[in-house]
Amino acid sequence: MHDNTITGFSKLTKDEKISWVVNHWTDQPTQAAQILKSFWHQEDDVQKVIDGFSENTLTNFVMPFGIAPNFKVNEQIYAVPMVIEESSVVAAASSAAKFWLNRGGFEAKVIGTVKEGQVHFSWPGKREQISPVLDHLCAFLRQDSAHLTANMEKRGGGMLAIEWLDLSHLETDYHQLKVTFETCDSMGANFINSVLEQLGQSLKTFLKNESGLPQHLRQVDIIMAILSNYTPQCAVKASVSCPVADLDNACEGIDGMAFAKKFQKAVRIAEIDPYRATTHNKGIFNGIDAVVLATGNDFRAVEACGHAHAANSGTYSSLSHCDLSDGMFHFWLELPIALGTIGGLTRLHPLAKLSLELLGNPTAEQLMQIIVCTGLAQNFAAVRSLTTTGIQKGHMKMHLQNILNHLGADADQQELARKHFENHTVSFTAVRSFLDALTREGTNAG
Amino acid sequence: MHDNTITGFSKLTKDEKISWVVNHWTDQPTQAAQILKSFWHQEDDVQKVIDGFSENTLTNFVMPFGIAPNFKVNEQIYAVPMVIEESSVVAAASSAAKFWLNRGGFEAKVIGTVKEGQVHFSWPGKREQISPVLDHLCAFLRQDSAHLTANMEKRGGGMLAIEWLDLSHLETDYHQLKVTFETCDSMGANFINSVLEQLGQSLKTFLKNESGLPQHLRQVDIIMAILSNYTPQCAVKASVSCPVADLDNACEGIDGMAFAKKFQKAVRIAEIDPYRATTHNKGIFNGIDAVVLATGNDFRAVEACGHAHAANSGTYSSLSHCDLSDGMFHFWLELPIALGTIGGLTRLHPLAKLSLELLGNPTAEQLMQIIVCTGLAQNFAAVRSLTTTGIQKGHMKMHLQNILNHLGADADQQELARKHFENHTVSFTAVRSFLDALTREGTNAG
Repeated sequence: MHDNTITGFSKLTKDEKISWVVNHWTDQPTQAAQILKSFWHQEDDVQKVIDGFSENTLTNFVMPFGIAPNFKVNEQIYAVPMVIEESSVVAAASSAAKFWLNRGGFEAKVIGTVKEGQVHFSWPGKREQISPVLDHLCAFLRQDSAHLTANMEKRGGGMLAIEWLDLSHLETDYHQLKVTFETCDSMGANFINSVLEQLGQSLKTFLKNESGLPQHLRQVDIIMAILSNYTPQCAVKASVSCPVADLDNACEGIDGMAFAKKFQKAVRIAEIDPYRATTHNKGIFNGIDAVVLATGNDFRAVEACGHAHAANSGTYSSLSHCDLSDGMFHFWLELPIALGTIGGLTRLHPLAKLSLELLGNPTAEQLMQIIVCTGLAQNFAAVRSLTTTGIQKGHMKMHLQNILNHLGADADQQELARKHFENHTVSFTAVRSFLDALTREGTNAG
Repeated sequence: MHDNTITGFSKLTKDEKISWVVNHWTDQPTQAAQILKSFWHQEDDVQKVIDGFSENTLTNFVMPFGIAPNFKVNEQIYAVPMVIEESSVVAAASSAAKFWLNRGGFEAKVIGTVKEGQVHFSWPGKREQISPVLDHLCAFLRQDSAHLTANMEKRGGGMLAIEWLDLSHLETDYHQLKVTFETCDSMGANFINSVLEQLGQSLKTFLKNESGLPQHLRQVDIIMAILSNYTPQCAVKASVSCPVADLDNACEGIDGMAFAKKFQKAVRIAEIDPYRATTHNKGIFNGIDAVVLATGNDFRAVEACGHAHAANSGTYSSLSHCDLSDGMFHFWLELPIALGTIGGLTRLHPLAKLSLELLGNPTAEQLMQIIVCTGLAQNFAAVRSLTTTGIQKGHMKMHLQNILNHLGADADQQELARKHFENHTVSFTAVRSFLDALTREGTNAG
């Protein structure tokens, strides 16, 4: 029954892994192995580095690496590297960047850089029972983790506050150490998690030796110790603004005020309707994740943080906001986001390293600002398209082009196809049938 | 001032784009151009297809493509392709898959496949004023979009219900057509958006010609028409369960019941604390996004949907849940998720196509189930590590290996480094210094 299962897969060499996979799971093993190997990097050393990022690696998955030029952020010009497999995103970001370049550019401000972590534990007491020794405990925790924080302190960061939260009203015996950190230019996950695991152990030691406490309070069960990806105190506000009259050219056939009002209405709808908010915010992350990926950061962390923030009012809502007053158009995005420009893959992935160089080797704070501005740009472009021309015309044109590329259509065929599909629904099957028909006609004629 | 801006970047050839980028944004243009070009696929045709997915493309960003074997989902064995740049994720998924393989495997059930879209518009009336003609309107809308829905209907899908929502209590004159769809094996974004844009136009036509209505109600301002990425009716429930006694081997040194209780407590904490929920769910998406990427689907859409769902109780909370009753351990994840196995990039990206072949060319429903099970597996592995051994030991071991690979350490150096860093904090700088010292020692000794 289990003939497709395997023991010791991770111990196989890469060639053996490929061989097992293609022989068990494909109809044409030789061809499948060739496809997999065709995506290897030509230099063994580089490929080895990439293989090492993950486990059971067979090859490299590729995504287009593109550039959105002309981004003006806080008076500085950037050409922003973006990694995304979805069409229109880089084009939209570029178009919004150019639009705002001539209207003052993007402004961005770091609201904070404080990250958080938690030690979760079961302890059969109340907060007031630990209060008398809390200062003593905190001093002990700091001292006991000093070997882990020393280097970060040299760089200007380290552990900030330690708070004891009694959450036993929510769950029997449940308490938490809530700890804040400054991690400078690193995202800090490894640093924070190492410190937190140590704090859990140190808490155990401290309580065990705290002879002033009754016996049953000298035991603690550490449930887990880990950073939180929700970082409301590590955030950026990005904004654009201009006189409403300067929006006259935002879209053909609609004056600045009419455009601004419609745009504002669309943002308002994303504020009040969670169904719309989900897609509105998804568009923001189209821009954000593309730069997060390009710079070797972790997009799951950024997504989780941003969406949790979008829900913090009790209703899942828009992350961006728009205001029209005194004849001015204001559009802004406030987003918690934790990123690094050192550590993790940032120096290890050759293209992440190059991306950071293209951005002038920014600090983490600068990168946070550039990325949140890219999210705002993306959102501006998406809402502008949605409220004016619609998005399908552009999308379908690009989808048609992708299919024509895939099917290897020549220039003449492409031109005929583009003409035909102006009035026909684009689908893979429809395009293939159209090209087949062209070929048959050609053969018959010949 | 704007000497780093550019007009017409998208019109340049790929070589010209690279040339502009490296000359304006790097210190060593020749080397940077070489790095970029070294990631091109060796076959021009394949590269052209990848370039076409996005815009202003310079090269391919690479992420490791790995395999988590031994996944048993609904009695079927799968080797699941995963694309992720973060270490430990594929190893964790593989380990959880193997663990549950011997305990009945994963069960998954599709709860629904209904997708939703919205036409948002301003109309100065109340719902009761449109009610008398609503049936007539819906019939007209269906007829007017029949040319777009005919193909999907042939495949068993199409437009389902059309609902008129009066939301003018939330925003002046704001109304919505809420429309549901069945899109079979395609994710359906292009189909849904094309239909919705048509419905917006058709609504305009209908009202204009509806002579029974007072003049001011015969005008409507379409704000936008687009699918919602929040799809609560398109969802999967994945679960694992076994007698608590069968968890005796979940982790060394802890018996099944103690493990189960600690595990349940950790899940409970993610249910009550949004800070923990964010990271708990982030771990779920580590697994989910890796398969979403590998199969050519859109991870931003999946993330937005899942996190919006996590917030639907009013407090951002855990997506997975755990129950211990009657001596059984139950762990499950219910997630709305919209995916395609045809359309989009699924056939166009050579590795997405191969991923789908590895999974037995699944239907969209099958893929939804496999992916949600991968998320549950990931979550099981993460919570198991967190509540037992902690996650840092494994993480830092892998991070050290990555840095050693990057710095080209030989086998002897690697072994010495592994020994040294058992008791020292791993960082890029620390590892480089250690290797430098080794080299100096070597030189001195020689």
